Amino acid sequence: MNGFVAGFVAGPVDPPDVQAAAAAADRLEGLATPPGALGRLGDLGVWLAGCQGEVPPRAVDDVRLVIFAGDHGVAAHGVSAFPPSVTPLMVQTFVAGRAGVSALAAAHGVAVRVLDLGVDCDPADLPEEVTERRVRRGSGAIHLEDALTPAELREALDVGAAAAAEGDPDLLISGDMGIGNTTPAAALVAASLGLAASDVTGIGTGIADDVRRHKQAVVQQALDRTRGRHDDPLELLAALGSADLAASSAFIATAARRGVPVLLDGLMAVACALVAERLAPGTAAWCRAGHRSPEPAQALALAALGLEPLLDLGMRLGEGSGAVAAVPLVRSAAAVLRDTALLADVLPPPDEAGTDAGDEQVS
Amino acid sequence: MNGFVAGFVAGPVDPPDVQAAAAAADRLEGLATPPGALGRLGDLGVWLAGCQGEVPPRAVDDVRLVIFAGDHGVAAHGVSAFPPSVTPLMVQTFVAGRAGVSALAAAHGVAVRVLDLGVDCDPADLPEEVTERRVRRGSGAIHLEDALTPAELREALDVGAAAAAEGDPDLLISGDMGIGNTTPAAALVAASLGLAASDVTGIGTGIADDVRRHKQAVVQQALDRTRGRHDDPLELLAALGSADLAASSAFIATAARRGVPVLLDGLMAVACALVAERLAPGTAAWCRAGHRSPEPAQALALAALGLEPLLDLGMRLGEGSGAVAAVPLVRSAAAVLRDTALLADVLPPPDEAGTDAGDEQVS
Repeated sequence: MNGFVAGFVAGPVDPPDVQAAAAAADRLEGLATPPGALGRLGDLGVWLAGCQGEVPPRAVDDVRLVIFAGDHGVAAHGVSAFPPSVTPLMVQTFVAGRAGVSALAAAHGVAVRVLDLGVDCDPADLPEEVTERRVRRGSGAIHLEDALTPAELREALDVGAAAAAEGDPDLLISGDMGIGNTTPAAALVAASLGLAASDVTGIGTGIADDVRRHKQAVVQQALDRTRGRHDDPLELLAALGSADLAASSAFIATAARRGVPVLLDGLMAVACALVAERLAPGTAAWCRAGHRSPEPAQALALAALGLEPLLDLGMRLGEGSGAVAAVPLVRSAAAVLRDTALLADVLPPPDEAGTDAGDEQVS
Repeated sequence: MNGFVAGFVAGPVDPPDVQAAAAAADRLEGLATPPGALGRLGDLGVWLAGCQGEVPPRAVDDVRLVIFAGDHGVAAHGVSAFPPSVTPLMVQTFVAGRAGVSALAAAHGVAVRVLDLGVDCDPADLPEEVTERRVRRGSGAIHLEDALTPAELREALDVGAAAAAEGDPDLLISGDMGIGNTTPAAALVAASLGLAASDVTGIGTGIADDVRRHKQAVVQQALDRTRGRHDDPLELLAALGSADLAASSAFIATAARRGVPVLLDGLMAVACALVAERLAPGTAAWCRAGHRSPEPAQALALAALGLEPLLDLGMRLGEGSGAVAAVPLVRSAAAVLRDTALLADVLPPPDEAGTDAGDEQVS
């Protein structure tokens, strides 16, 4: 159990503060801006104030990305453009601060931590602080076997929960690294929403169409193999997930339980949020979507969660990168709601105001 | 002529550095990311490198927003939700750093300057550094008369050019403030693209449908009044523009001539970029679009310029706010292209690599 005090807790989570959100909506309406002029930035600020229980919302300074790394048995079965040997190389690149997401995180003051939940390499090849919470070496090939044993699932959930329980963050982000990870993520979305593999299977990091068709067959085989076991989200994660995806699901649910808002990245994060909502109903209300992934399963999961992404830039890097790129928008939302003058403070007293017919629309 | 040394210069501008852009595209392909995984963030970095003539692109630190303020004679003719008396109040709010865009600019380290080109108030009511370049008090009501005399147009262009010629910015943004400004901006777009008022007239800061129909009639009247004078962009600005929009057009064109990239805001900025492209062909290549405005004329002008906005959040605040909200994306683009490791530096020598069939796709 990794020595963590807090284990993962399932069950409903409290919603964000409705009164704070209502007060924030009132404040938004009272700003020295035309009604609705801030668009979705205004809505984002209202949501943030509700999560914080503070109006105006405080600055979003302490933002943390945890990248859950792990390999997937399916990656040995021709579903990815890259071999599993890339996973530990990328973990080392995160540790060195040289990955794509590292560059984005450094640019926007986001702290990055990488946790090896199930990378398929000798643990000695990675730093101890990364591997000390590893649950197993590679998760099971989900079309042939369960990804995790119940005990491994429990351990992965606890690691994810513990990662979300540290410090006093203003915003949390989960990232995922593991060659083949879009295959179990697509399977989790399909199983959660009762869809077929053909609905959810995309090109991941960039596979040719024949490889995508093979990947789709692998996803369908996994769904068929586990038929009847999709209703219980714990069973689902053990059967079709992986150690990294289980940890990520627990991370998101635990952030919500702690009252910490979550900015979701691409397919892996949104698939895990979908599972988290089932593990801990109410979680989705603490989440906003950072970016739209080209993966079809992400759009389906977002729609089921009622979330609309902030960015749509065609990014498919993973690693949490789309969410990190969207962090400045959350900060923008806090800033406009906090620092913009109120209309009442800007307008002169009524007798000094202009006499135009439109005047009453300003006050 | 305001004592500025540099007057506005029309005529073709040089394109961004093609070789630097090609080298940046090569670098993008060589990053330790799957091909194309950075999506439009990658394209943005390549564009930036071309503008800078540097690979990798340097950080985008010195970002400046100049808000061109001015009133419009049409505002006295029922085209806006707000009375013109709001314009000087908002100018004072910018000076005090309390407007919506002030909050965004402070959050993202963008310097803001406001210039009164033609606000309809006693100049003594505004700080001297804001009003010292004022061209006239309110521009003409374009459905009844020309907005500017040729001499006023020249002066407004020179003010805009001078504002773009100061310092050594990494990125420039134009904002606009003036009740009624979407009416001349829509007229400029319609006249530039040969469209009717019904194609370009939107709700601005939020007018009811009957007011919008009246606004459309005003725009059509302005277009009809000036028929035959739309081919020369200088004539167009004098007839259908305003002092602030003329200055903004010259600002964008001059930034391009100096080799400084421009991030465009909403309708006013994009309408001015359309005019700037006609005043100084090649200007559009130095521009990227920060956000999509709900105003129909903006989408039409963007399409004509071949630009796709980075953000689409339903913002209609003006003031440059949509572009300022998108500044972190430009910084993200620079960061990923500059700071992400190259794949060649991450992969082990070939004989140590894994033996998967997918291997050749990694190298």
